[in-house]
Amino acid sequence: MPRSKLDHHVVVIGAGFGGLQTVRGLKGADAGITLIDQRNHHLFQPLLYQVATTILATSEIAWPIRSLFRDRKEVTTLLARVDGVDTAARLVRLGDGSTVSYDTLVITTGARHAYFGHDEWEEFAPGLKTLEDATTIRRRLLLAFERAEREPDPQARRALLTFGVIGAGPTGVELAGIIAELAKRTLWPEFRNIDTRDARILLIEAGPRVLSAFPEELSAYAARALEQRGVDLLLGAAVSDCSDEGLTVGETFIPCRTAVWAAGVAASPASTWLGIEGDRAGRVPVRPDLSVAAHRDIFVIGDTASVKAPDGSIVPGIAPAAKQQGAYVARTIRNRISGKPSSGPFRYRHQGNLATIGKNSAVVHMGRLKLRGRLAWWVWGVAHIFFLIGTRSRTAVAWSWLWTYLAGQHSARLITQGPALQSEGSAQRAADQTTDGVRAAEQRVEK
Amino acid sequence: MPRSKLDHHVVVIGAGFGGLQTVRGLKGADAGITLIDQRNHHLFQPLLYQVATTILATSEIAWPIRSLFRDRKEVTTLLARVDGVDTAARLVRLGDGSTVSYDTLVITTGARHAYFGHDEWEEFAPGLKTLEDATTIRRRLLLAFERAEREPDPQARRALLTFGVIGAGPTGVELAGIIAELAKRTLWPEFRNIDTRDARILLIEAGPRVLSAFPEELSAYAARALEQRGVDLLLGAAVSDCSDEGLTVGETFIPCRTAVWAAGVAASPASTWLGIEGDRAGRVPVRPDLSVAAHRDIFVIGDTASVKAPDGSIVPGIAPAAKQQGAYVARTIRNRISGKPSSGPFRYRHQGNLATIGKNSAVVHMGRLKLRGRLAWWVWGVAHIFFLIGTRSRTAVAWSWLWTYLAGQHSARLITQGPALQSEGSAQRAADQTTDGVRAAEQRVEK
Repeated sequence: MPRSKLDHHVVVIGAGFGGLQTVRGLKGADAGITLIDQRNHHLFQPLLYQVATTILATSEIAWPIRSLFRDRKEVTTLLARVDGVDTAARLVRLGDGSTVSYDTLVITTGARHAYFGHDEWEEFAPGLKTLEDATTIRRRLLLAFERAEREPDPQARRALLTFGVIGAGPTGVELAGIIAELAKRTLWPEFRNIDTRDARILLIEAGPRVLSAFPEELSAYAARALEQRGVDLLLGAAVSDCSDEGLTVGETFIPCRTAVWAAGVAASPASTWLGIEGDRAGRVPVRPDLSVAAHRDIFVIGDTASVKAPDGSIVPGIAPAAKQQGAYVARTIRNRISGKPSSGPFRYRHQGNLATIGKNSAVVHMGRLKLRGRLAWWVWGVAHIFFLIGTRSRTAVAWSWLWTYLAGQHSARLITQGPALQSEGSAQRAADQTTDGVRAAEQRVEK
Repeated sequence: MPRSKLDHHVVVIGAGFGGLQTVRGLKGADAGITLIDQRNHHLFQPLLYQVATTILATSEIAWPIRSLFRDRKEVTTLLARVDGVDTAARLVRLGDGSTVSYDTLVITTGARHAYFGHDEWEEFAPGLKTLEDATTIRRRLLLAFERAEREPDPQARRALLTFGVIGAGPTGVELAGIIAELAKRTLWPEFRNIDTRDARILLIEAGPRVLSAFPEELSAYAARALEQRGVDLLLGAAVSDCSDEGLTVGETFIPCRTAVWAAGVAASPASTWLGIEGDRAGRVPVRPDLSVAAHRDIFVIGDTASVKAPDGSIVPGIAPAAKQQGAYVARTIRNRISGKPSSGPFRYRHQGNLATIGKNSAVVHMGRLKLRGRLAWWVWGVAHIFFLIGTRSRTAVAWSWLWTYLAGQHSARLITQGPALQSEGSAQRAADQTTDGVRAAEQRVEK
């Protein structure tokens, strides 16, 4: 791989919030930078659930990575998969066998969903981490209504109109809230054989309350708001099995053909690359300056790292934390290159928690400020538009939201990725669908 | 299948331009209507090439079919694949074995690409008929540049930077024009190892000129405008072979890793359903009132039908023709239901031809009016926005175009549908890619 002519070469693996902030923070530094990602786009994950629930288009929350740094000639963007790191030779090994050498390495490869030892559940209850996850979930949601419309058996129809969301953190709450709005407010005038308002939306949470990171009063508000929107809360209830036919919650089997997993996260394989034992969630433990114990030239940040806050708690896996870490690491690298002393350990500043439940309903917790309802919803919306990249996306998302708000219509109700009519899941599931299972195998593979 | 309580039941197969216009024209008629399509969305095909070339988002040119008729309680929308028609029993057979009975049947199932006996070419040179086709082509275009950036061998890099468009009708011209703009104006500042301005864009046409449906002077203008934009025209040149490695044009082999087919169309299998021999392109011959010879209760319209204009020419397979036919058939059905006499044979009114070449460049031919250049480009744009459905899409497309025009940036440069890094095409192609071929098989199946 060609590398920069500049003396110091920084390799950043992962173009999420942490990776982009690192590259931004190195602007003007005396360093060449190579940014590696296995996708060609940076994804605004906090709004991914809105693609899954037909409100936003894929391109409204994703940007080609190389376009973000087109004016930074010292930055090279590589679309490549990383297979490992040779820490002795200071080489990153790519999927095609080639290597990229580094002087400083920043690993920020994010996280994926954790199924707590039941990876086979992923087929039935996919998580939400990539654009393809979002379009897969969107397709399944919309197909469930389509199949119910053509299903003569009332029991089978009931299962098709039951939607399970597992995990009641912000993503689970937001998903359940919008699915309920879709079924109970948007879709019902369009079907002739079913009443989509009969749909059952389950939000299943092993803990005692929704939005456990928020103060109890805001959790209680969110729970009430969800119930008013027709979401059934199953709290203190762990999913013990998950299949094609439904979910088992505790001892109870619930027929349910569509499920989304929003419960746990596991870090990417960075700890394996480095030969370091990760924590329970696979995160790499880092030192106070975010470097790795045995390797002062390697930093791990974002969801991939286990970072202790000054009070001993673990820094949460959210976008603002990753961005702060990226900015900090960029500063540290600049200091090292220019021979300046370190600027002290990383300090996480918690800016607050936001979650939305549905139209005119959200919760905001920032320091002493606790908001709920309509005002919180506007704060949530403005904050998210502010954090999008570029005028184009801001206006497009604002317009999509305004349209949804005023017209009550969702603009991205598309069943795509594989012919609409193929069944999904197991071959059995394919065979017993009302629609044809001709290319069901392809559909499964595609997932 | 449940059917309307109204006496007369019209079944419309296909929710393209012709199908929608038929259903619209039957508003207020004393008839129940079932609209069947194998997709959940109506697609504005004239702008599909802009999704393939990263300008528009999928949801900007597609609308959920059932949302279009949400207020028409006599219209039932079915997401289903049609397997055949029992003309004696007046039944439409669906993919799941169920049937829908009809009094009047309107078939408007469109066309797909014709490879003139070489269906194996489709794998290497896909056509552009569905949203998935568009995102597949978009992915291949963008991946070709990504792979070239990492390709050390100059010859292989050259093949990756060669793009072949086969067929120089409006779609082929529009595709070649935008691919050239993408390579020569948009992408070049973002790559470090290649200069995308070196890309070669071939427009290959068996006939003697581009846009053969236009007057010669407009064809000549379009040819010049394409060449100015850096498109290589190969006219009077037929593709004789097509593979993973490149295109053979006449006797000459041209290494080329990305190709798009815009050459011929073949009608859907409607003629097989009806047991009628189609014409050379598989179209069903119809009588002057667009019904089928042996079946006065079956109409075939749009790209599926072979309709003779009063002057003996075949009505072209374009959206305005399908819409006129849909309106005509709706009128005929209304007359029959109410016992009125027929309103005479279908008469096609040709409204004109439009094609765009690139920014500030298009050709328009309407009656005596012949426009070219900047004014034609604005006419083209305004006409297309006018024909989109609904305020939401019009504003979204107008904004996307304005943004592209002013900022020179395309907003939908996403490599999606299957992990970005998988190779496509044959296993061999997968194996010799710079990127990893781990799940290449999946990618092939997915296509």
